[in-house]
Amino acid sequence: MSEQVPNKETIEKAHQLVAPYIHHTPVLTSSFLNDLCDAQIFFKCENLQKIGAFKARGGLNAILSLSEDQFENGVTTHSSGNHAQAIAFAAAKVGAKAYIVMPDNSPLVKIRAVEGYGGQITFCKNTPEERESTVQEIIGKTGATFIHPFNNYEVIAGQATAAKELIEDVDHELDMIFAPVGGGGLLSGTALTAHYFSPATKVYAGEPEGAADAVLSFRSDKIEKAPYVKTIADGLLTYLGDKTFPIIKQHVTDILTVSDEEIVQAMRFLWERMKLVVEPSGAVSLAAFIKNKDQFSGKKVGVILTGGNVDLGKLPF
Amino acid sequence: MSEQVPNKETIEKAHQLVAPYIHHTPVLTSSFLNDLCDAQIFFKCENLQKIGAFKARGGLNAILSLSEDQFENGVTTHSSGNHAQAIAFAAAKVGAKAYIVMPDNSPLVKIRAVEGYGGQITFCKNTPEERESTVQEIIGKTGATFIHPFNNYEVIAGQATAAKELIEDVDHELDMIFAPVGGGGLLSGTALTAHYFSPATKVYAGEPEGAADAVLSFRSDKIEKAPYVKTIADGLLTYLGDKTFPIIKQHVTDILTVSDEEIVQAMRFLWERMKLVVEPSGAVSLAAFIKNKDQFSGKKVGVILTGGNVDLGKLPF
Repeated sequence: MSEQVPNKETIEKAHQLVAPYIHHTPVLTSSFLNDLCDAQIFFKCENLQKIGAFKARGGLNAILSLSEDQFENGVTTHSSGNHAQAIAFAAAKVGAKAYIVMPDNSPLVKIRAVEGYGGQITFCKNTPEERESTVQEIIGKTGATFIHPFNNYEVIAGQATAAKELIEDVDHELDMIFAPVGGGGLLSGTALTAHYFSPATKVYAGEPEGAADAVLSFRSDKIEKAPYVKTIADGLLTYLGDKTFPIIKQHVTDILTVSDEEIVQAMRFLWERMKLVVEPSGAVSLAAFIKNKDQFSGKKVGVILTGGNVDLGKLPF
Repeated sequence: MSEQVPNKETIEKAHQLVAPYIHHTPVLTSSFLNDLCDAQIFFKCENLQKIGAFKARGGLNAILSLSEDQFENGVTTHSSGNHAQAIAFAAAKVGAKAYIVMPDNSPLVKIRAVEGYGGQITFCKNTPEERESTVQEIIGKTGATFIHPFNNYEVIAGQATAAKELIEDVDHELDMIFAPVGGGGLLSGTALTAHYFSPATKVYAGEPEGAADAVLSFRSDKIEKAPYVKTIADGLLTYLGDKTFPIIKQHVTDILTVSDEEIVQAMRFLWERMKLVVEPSGAVSLAAFIKNKDQFSGKKVGVILTGGNVDLGKLPF
């Protein structure tokens, strides 16, 4: 795996590698929202991506970047969320083996999805230590390569392709792009893409108030944990990694926090007006933009909707 | 208004007229569904259309086809559903006046939407006679032109543009297109588009068992009413008109009925797997395809998802 921060060529290559396996997701607009915010907003709909989230991009690029020997031995990761599906999906697409460690209290729907892609699941207790040691056991037995959900340059380069498509598909130069931040894989990729492909485009992050580690880290200039963790945006609970943080620090303009109420309002707008199923974490970027719309008046704004994996039986409205 | 069945040139002109005001909606696919049905399915996402339904197309074409004098006097219609919004939206877009007659028990959300587009609402009791006489009063006072929701050749030509985009955007020739049928505006337009632009493409309709007038009419060769009306697909309750029925009779291959349970299953698939908010009426085409998938094995199938206007507080799952 690369120890180099992705450059322009790395991101272009990543896009060539993953393009045959992913949806080139549409960019949608809402004149209602444009009028309301006095801006032109372009939604990159990664909720409509394979596995229902942008993470398919990073998973594919990581696996397709393996050496022949590594590929032969397969890949492994631990996750109860979209990354587990992304790795299982990506491995199945390209014919690699995927060993997925999942906490034994994972939602059945997530387990079924990983099984559906042919991922080989090993269950463990839901503690960081158990997850880690179970993965190490698998690596010992199989020689599989560990794919970190975000702190991995191939994953970052893969996630960077979402913003690349957005920039290419919008006729105008975007003034700014909003992405959510959890571990920072998508955000750092988005920031690199803007830097290389559209240098005048600023990148802003949205982060839940109840998982406000990235904004703290951004201000204090070192990786911090959140003061407390309590948010509906369950895809954004992790903190930054030593690969994602420096990229974010260098290339992101600001990180804006939003409350759960603001997240649910943005989510509801997306469902009711845009007819898009978006999960809470996937609506954080829009919530951050809307909350601060006055400072973006007249601008051309890209907003990445990151995922749509939500339990219809447990809606917040 | 034209008394001629739309021809190829009429549909091309309609597309030129409406294109600046509508979304060119995306065509989406699901490999999961393709595998399940052993077919290649292409969804035309008119739930993502302006006003959340294909009816924006017909409304725009009808208003944009008026003479200068007619345009000056505005348009009127009666509807409690998507057609009211379509006419109010279309009139606002092109600067015409819209007088909308709505039953006084219309859902508040629909009333607000029409008001939001600047439509002038007149309320009446919810009987066909009251609706009709109220519209006649408005015509007497204003000289406005009545736009029928489906039994109008300009409306039909406008709705035809959805299938035209679908045919143009899919690289392969489609073997068949599925559309739902209520009054038959979309279905007759779709059938004409296939006939003129892709003659090898057959057109099938989906119809709720609980509003099975079109299938009866199709078999008996005259316009029939449904034996009973009871379905969740509340956008498909009307029966065919003397303009839509002959086109359907001539150019549609078959009409396939589906139960409410099958409609809700298709709807749930679209929400959970495709991340699309689709209303029950909008999922009828998919339900009809899935129910009969064995006879379409190996085919390239277009499916029009017609609308996404649904009350999030009243979901059937």
